[in-house]
Amino acid sequence: MAHRVAAQIPHPLDLRSIRIQDSYWSSYVDLIRQTVIPYQWEALNDRVPDAEPSHAIKNFRIAAGFEKGEFGGFFFQDTDLYKWLEAVGYSLATHPDPDLEKVADEAIELVAAAQLEDGYLNTYFTVAVPGQRWTNLLDCHEMYTAGHLIEGAVAYYYGTGKTRLLDVARRFADHIDERFGPNPGQLRGYDGHQELELALVKLYEATNEPRYLELASFLIEERGQEPNYLVAEWEKRGRTSAWAPGIVQKSPPHMPYHQAHKPVREQEVASGHAVRAVYMYTAMADLALKKGDASLLEACKRLWNNVVNKQMYVNGSIGSTHHGEAFTFDYDLPNDTNYSETCASIGLIFFARRLLQLEPRGEYGDVMERALYNTVTAGIAGDGKHYFYVNPMEVWPAASEGNPGKHHVKAVRQKWYGCACCPPNVARLLSSLGHYIYTANEDTLYTHLYIGSETKHSLGGRQVTLSLKSSMPWSGHASLKVEAIESAATGTFALALRVPSWSKNTAFSLNGQPVQPIIKDGYAYVTREWQAGDEISIELDMTPQRIYSHSQLRANAGRVALQRGPLVYAFEETDNGAPLAALSLKRDSEIRPAASEWRSDVVMLEMDGVRLAEPADRIASLYGDAPPVETPQKLIAVPYTLWGNRKPGEMLVWIRESR
Amino acid sequence: MAHRVAAQIPHPLDLRSIRIQDSYWSSYVDLIRQTVIPYQWEALNDRVPDAEPSHAIKNFRIAAGFEKGEFGGFFFQDTDLYKWLEAVGYSLATHPDPDLEKVADEAIELVAAAQLEDGYLNTYFTVAVPGQRWTNLLDCHEMYTAGHLIEGAVAYYYGTGKTRLLDVARRFADHIDERFGPNPGQLRGYDGHQELELALVKLYEATNEPRYLELASFLIEERGQEPNYLVAEWEKRGRTSAWAPGIVQKSPPHMPYHQAHKPVREQEVASGHAVRAVYMYTAMADLALKKGDASLLEACKRLWNNVVNKQMYVNGSIGSTHHGEAFTFDYDLPNDTNYSETCASIGLIFFARRLLQLEPRGEYGDVMERALYNTVTAGIAGDGKHYFYVNPMEVWPAASEGNPGKHHVKAVRQKWYGCACCPPNVARLLSSLGHYIYTANEDTLYTHLYIGSETKHSLGGRQVTLSLKSSMPWSGHASLKVEAIESAATGTFALALRVPSWSKNTAFSLNGQPVQPIIKDGYAYVTREWQAGDEISIELDMTPQRIYSHSQLRANAGRVALQRGPLVYAFEETDNGAPLAALSLKRDSEIRPAASEWRSDVVMLEMDGVRLAEPADRIASLYGDAPPVETPQKLIAVPYTLWGNRKPGEMLVWIRESR
Repeated sequence: MAHRVAAQIPHPLDLRSIRIQDSYWSSYVDLIRQTVIPYQWEALNDRVPDAEPSHAIKNFRIAAGFEKGEFGGFFFQDTDLYKWLEAVGYSLATHPDPDLEKVADEAIELVAAAQLEDGYLNTYFTVAVPGQRWTNLLDCHEMYTAGHLIEGAVAYYYGTGKTRLLDVARRFADHIDERFGPNPGQLRGYDGHQELELALVKLYEATNEPRYLELASFLIEERGQEPNYLVAEWEKRGRTSAWAPGIVQKSPPHMPYHQAHKPVREQEVASGHAVRAVYMYTAMADLALKKGDASLLEACKRLWNNVVNKQMYVNGSIGSTHHGEAFTFDYDLPNDTNYSETCASIGLIFFARRLLQLEPRGEYGDVMERALYNTVTAGIAGDGKHYFYVNPMEVWPAASEGNPGKHHVKAVRQKWYGCACCPPNVARLLSSLGHYIYTANEDTLYTHLYIGSETKHSLGGRQVTLSLKSSMPWSGHASLKVEAIESAATGTFALALRVPSWSKNTAFSLNGQPVQPIIKDGYAYVTREWQAGDEISIELDMTPQRIYSHSQLRANAGRVALQRGPLVYAFEETDNGAPLAALSLKRDSEIRPAASEWRSDVVMLEMDGVRLAEPADRIASLYGDAPPVETPQKLIAVPYTLWGNRKPGEMLVWIRESR
Repeated sequence: MAHRVAAQIPHPLDLRSIRIQDSYWSSYVDLIRQTVIPYQWEALNDRVPDAEPSHAIKNFRIAAGFEKGEFGGFFFQDTDLYKWLEAVGYSLATHPDPDLEKVADEAIELVAAAQLEDGYLNTYFTVAVPGQRWTNLLDCHEMYTAGHLIEGAVAYYYGTGKTRLLDVARRFADHIDERFGPNPGQLRGYDGHQELELALVKLYEATNEPRYLELASFLIEERGQEPNYLVAEWEKRGRTSAWAPGIVQKSPPHMPYHQAHKPVREQEVASGHAVRAVYMYTAMADLALKKGDASLLEACKRLWNNVVNKQMYVNGSIGSTHHGEAFTFDYDLPNDTNYSETCASIGLIFFARRLLQLEPRGEYGDVMERALYNTVTAGIAGDGKHYFYVNPMEVWPAASEGNPGKHHVKAVRQKWYGCACCPPNVARLLSSLGHYIYTANEDTLYTHLYIGSETKHSLGGRQVTLSLKSSMPWSGHASLKVEAIESAATGTFALALRVPSWSKNTAFSLNGQPVQPIIKDGYAYVTREWQAGDEISIELDMTPQRIYSHSQLRANAGRVALQRGPLVYAFEETDNGAPLAALSLKRDSEIRPAASEWRSDVVMLEMDGVRLAEPADRIASLYGDAPPVETPQKLIAVPYTLWGNRKPGEMLVWIRESR
């Protein structure tokens, strides 16, 4: 991997050097490779029965002149193919597959054929609105789409060594670099939907071309400057939006929604569309890292703190409202109307990984783990063919149907969506999972996630082969073993293991003997002359925990959530009966791990609760002065991430607590 | 009053025979007369500074040819003037006021001048879209507007004896009667917004013209029949909506929203726009009454039961969602996103009054009282110049500002609205309050509401003067005294007093001696040869009560509301501090009436509660495993109807209950 980083800055490892073998995660990773990638290819080709058509391949064929027809789908429909290619690139890095590579190569030829002479590439603008390039950055996701092309190209290049798509991406990036910038004759614009910025940093890493880093920096720094480019552009095109053609708008577009209301360095709180926000923060962290920019890092940390300590759900999801798929404001975290888009948690993981490179602090790993184990995997069904965009904290299926304010809250995972951002985003994240397990610099290997895997890496000047074994998330044992060290030369290096904040009692052993590593900022460091066969083990505390919320978080007052290890739990109607709102968890109840009749590997939780019901003489009325009748009831909780995989029904994360 | 009803059917009394003198209600009634009616006249003339213009008078002036200009406001802007004239009519009935009458007469001349030769009258259609009459009943409220003209005209006729506006209304009604009906050449249409139906029944009562009753019946019975008129009309005009001109719609309009999805007699549950629904139910009850139609009465009772026992808030408000200002479905009563429009509670009062005529049952009076004492008066500020459309059960001002799903929930009452339906609706209801206090037939006077007043009425063949004295809602004593009986002839009649369901212990006395009246269906009947000076007294139980909800009402699980007499209570930030969600009421706490520092007449409630807060080491984070710290706190509750009259802040009706 061509990362150009200072020796001391930890970076993710080359995917090709990591082989995931994990009793929990392998099934997800295999699902992506064996089911999701092939299924999504069918979807991109409009061959999934009863699902909304993607139009993606068709659009490229039309743009390339291979067939006639009209553009279909959203402005950014191309990204579905690009994200698929990105996932394929990651997958091929670890699991070579000539058949899949052949299909992908053909798709890449199609992409290349759709590129114009001058490097421009976007089927919406080529087919549907030729001549309107770069006139509506606010609405049309033109740079966003370019960003996904670049991310796909870089991943495919790393995975296969092939430069065909990378060359296409470079030509487009060069075209953009010519058109946009601070110089006379250039546009000082940036996209309504951030994404190109982080992609350009990847392109810089892959090519060593500093122009790409500078362009990313320009796009980030220009954002939110006065006079506001996006507002001026809107004025220029007659105050219209591509989302509501022909209507002259009274008010200018809302800049906080696009994180363009002030320069990014001055932004204090997370606002607007959640995915855009975290993609931007990721690029900011990338730039802080590449450029050693301390004040940009400060801005990143300020925004991180706001997101994590004021605007994040307990499942690591973000976006309190479906109106604009957006953040709202501090402590506003309603459970039954939240958006909590799967893509936004993926973006939060991107951001956390960059911060972990900048500063190996456990809090970043904790959030990364929380989002990954709970929300990202909740986004995908066990069959790999059904997805959640929205990850509610509470579901009443009748309200999802019958209350328009909750129509976005789906009670069951859906097939392919018209706006299919989440499914391929899950695929690209899970197929590059290795990038999140470890980072390393010259003399320290950080383990952030306990996901069983083998890896090779140069540490302390020696090529080291390591194997990580983990029983997570069902039990708390993990061990990292030095399987082999290539060179005979001696030298020390450190293995740093993340100590999750949820583990209240953590024990370590080295080669079977208890050991007390140095704990710093949530990581346990063992530095020594590691020898082949050495093994450091960690025993995490898997005692189920009650989680309480800050009192400003009004929606959770008097309520409790459950967590065991990294997994947040939920109550489902299928285990507990409806209405779930009538149930409470006894404050003094033990929380007992329990077997699941459904899946032998899954640890359920069992506890003592109370059900409220109305007195018999008041069943026909809404209100009455007689207190509810209380009946003891055993409650069962299921890992949140697995909810909705059995019978459809109600779901609840935050349950009332009673005495 | 020219009611033509069978002798045994109780009817409301002539407003001119009722004089309200009540320590609680007189201030509201005076406020309407002295402040609201003059203020609204200023508003109708666009003379209220900083308020949205009404356009109403201006539209009529343009339509009448008195000035040039463009139509302003909504399709139904005329109704603001009509509802004002209705309120003026009621006011003049009890409080003659030559100056006000002169202003009103001039406004009536303006209305008359805007009427066309053929009787048609609607300034939107005359000024803005001439030639489009009766082509979009679905969207344009054309009959709705006619209905308010008629209601205004009838009220003004009863209040002043003048027929000028009544004649205008009749000419328009005749025009509609010609155009719509079951005969060849007539349109089988009905309005998207019900209102004309109940108005035509009033016109029938005022004029004895049976055609108006039959037209009302036609409109009610035709509604929801197949083929659906409103859908066919939409097809005919190219599948467009007047609310989004130029856009061809993919789906036909949603008929349940308009209560036109099936014939009204077959409707089982309340659906759609709440005001339209209850206006329709009112007309259905009117027709059931006038025509002695038992099956229509059955439909009314079925819908009443659904509203009251499945879809009504504890403050007597309806409409669970702002999307379409509508009902949602059974037991879906969210507290923080409800609509609960003031107008809808007014319509519910209309419906209840008709049912009380059909069957004097306490449950109808209970709901009428609940809606009136809690929601209707909550809609208007103490200054008579600020109003709530939406009556939330829970307010977090920051969320009203910062969460788009709660923008409709206003934390403070607003000045005049662009769509100003509620303020004049409150005015017309409160200025006709007498219509809701009593109904009577030949030998029974029913007292439904304990609102101090004097009245004269013929009972048992004798002209009887009665005075009702009441200390409600602050204490529970009321008495009804026969002040005078005109004729010397003897004869019995009954005085029936409603026994509110909230009064768990009710005592009666006759001329100071305890008495046990016959209690039937929530009314206490005392039948005797009443003499001048006789007095029946009722002592209602004002013990504060806890109210619990049905367990299917998920939003209120584990919560309790408070009621004392007819008043539901709420907690405000100004008394209790924020966040209110952190507070709970102790199950074993006494609920103590308490004095208010704010208003000496108001009874507050005081009780023992608990505040939750996070441990000191966790103030900066959202979540943690340490249980919240509990601190005892005295809680203060204010009558819901008076909330938001002091410092702006949070408000909460349903508080958590703790042990």
